[in-house]
Amino acid sequence: MKEKEFINIIQNTLSSKYIGDDCAYLEDLGIVVSQDSLVEEVHFSRRYFTPYQLGYKSVAVNISDICASGAEPKYLTIALSLPDKTEDKFIEDFYNGAKDACFGAEIVGGDITGADKIYVSVCAIGSVKGRKISSRGGAKVGQKVVISGKHGLSAVGLSILSGQNYEQLFEDEKKRLIDAHIMPKPQMEFSKRIATCQMGKYAMMDTSDGLADALSVIADMSGVMLEIYYDKIPTDAALVKIPNNKDFILYGGEDYGLVATTDEVSDFTVIGEVKSGSGVKLNYSDGTYDLLSKKEVENKLYKHFKE
Amino acid sequence: MKEKEFINIIQNTLSSKYIGDDCAYLEDLGIVVSQDSLVEEVHFSRRYFTPYQLGYKSVAVNISDICASGAEPKYLTIALSLPDKTEDKFIEDFYNGAKDACFGAEIVGGDITGADKIYVSVCAIGSVKGRKISSRGGAKVGQKVVISGKHGLSAVGLSILSGQNYEQLFEDEKKRLIDAHIMPKPQMEFSKRIATCQMGKYAMMDTSDGLADALSVIADMSGVMLEIYYDKIPTDAALVKIPNNKDFILYGGEDYGLVATTDEVSDFTVIGEVKSGSGVKLNYSDGTYDLLSKKEVENKLYKHFKE
Repeated sequence: MKEKEFINIIQNTLSSKYIGDDCAYLEDLGIVVSQDSLVEEVHFSRRYFTPYQLGYKSVAVNISDICASGAEPKYLTIALSLPDKTEDKFIEDFYNGAKDACFGAEIVGGDITGADKIYVSVCAIGSVKGRKISSRGGAKVGQKVVISGKHGLSAVGLSILSGQNYEQLFEDEKKRLIDAHIMPKPQMEFSKRIATCQMGKYAMMDTSDGLADALSVIADMSGVMLEIYYDKIPTDAALVKIPNNKDFILYGGEDYGLVATTDEVSDFTVIGEVKSGSGVKLNYSDGTYDLLSKKEVENKLYKHFKE
Repeated sequence: MKEKEFINIIQNTLSSKYIGDDCAYLEDLGIVVSQDSLVEEVHFSRRYFTPYQLGYKSVAVNISDICASGAEPKYLTIALSLPDKTEDKFIEDFYNGAKDACFGAEIVGGDITGADKIYVSVCAIGSVKGRKISSRGGAKVGQKVVISGKHGLSAVGLSILSGQNYEQLFEDEKKRLIDAHIMPKPQMEFSKRIATCQMGKYAMMDTSDGLADALSVIADMSGVMLEIYYDKIPTDAALVKIPNNKDFILYGGEDYGLVATTDEVSDFTVIGEVKSGSGVKLNYSDGTYDLLSKKEVENKLYKHFKE
């Protein structure tokens, strides 16, 4: 599906300042809101996901969107569409998983309907009280680029689930990578620390579509260059054993880490700096580097969508 | 699908005070939130709905939920899942319809994904500022029962679309009934008038699942009896020509009118009174009456769900 093209059409039709970001910041109400959906056989398969895990991940990815804005996740509504003859146990397990991914937020409503396949759409609301809200266009020259979470694990985990046999990995390593895909942890603590220590504008985004995508979008929307030291990006030791691990780390997606630009760096993992220019400059330890334009990143992105 | 049973399981799993109502009232944030989905071949068919009309109705039914709470509809997010190869024109038409159903509210986000069938899930947010928020359990003995909108039209319209041939109806009458099904008008003005003139508790609900359902739920959750004068219920002249029109008027659903209980009755259409007791008492002009228990109403409800 031509997702980016469709979003352009929506933006043109609605002429809204809000469309295009993962969260909309509604200043008059003091909230941010986001909505994200998971469709069976597009975003997940029942072969890999138990109902509990599906409930967990559906909520976790939406909590992650709120965290990316810097707001405090507060409330969620869940629309769940299910095939006829779904067993009661599925509903119970799904909502137990959803509840366990809330980390203090609360599920307050939604609806349940029939459908051919499983379809989950979650709407999440965050409070901006006491928080400075991020913007993808908020990065300023001189700020540091900081990161949370480990990168590349989720995509390798999905690759294992899809049948790829990495003989070089131990079973506990495989399990860790699969868990990263199935039950990602929203970066609530990092989000709070970033959003409560900012004095001015800053950028923050989750890495759901890949770390390179997040860096590239921030650079593009802020009109700056992000200079990144590749070796500082946190990942898992198991990835060293995987061929083309760089592609997983940069473009794998679904790790739901956060990347932010900030003046205040105490206790954060710094991976780079905001410079004047455009695009993302990736420096390697051997002194070489890659310059990634927005277009190059988009072309390499991990895609859920069939073109 | 066993919708009510599933909602019970969700309530038990989450132990939340919010689940079960169409809107959740989040007092700390000063908002109400609701989410409602439309699934192809469950809630609508592309044979009857143009993309524009689908966009319109998806938003209208969610605006109606906010109106039922008494809040002011402010913002919406839309999750749209579409088959591959959906044309650009579909997106444009859909969002033009969605925009036209906003009546002052604004679409601020959502997402777009692939899927086998069309799936729309809308989340709506309303502001409680200057409004007294309704509750299904808020009806008090002595209040009047007031109503907005016309009832029974939408279900007859759907019946015509499904192939029922009402030879007794003129073409313009058929068109009016079909329009009531395809493009229902949210009762924003009535909602505002009710929610700004209440001094204390009151009940309000939309008639999306049928007028009898709304009356029965309010009676049950408020612990009162609603005594209704059937002949005062507003409908369309065309329905007089339809056999079993009473079933359409009481159980048809999808008219998206509002029914409320109120102390203040000026300018409202009064259809009955709140009495002590339980259930709904329907008085007819010939002096006869029906007593409807909650169970009887549930059994007769118009259902989207295959059991």
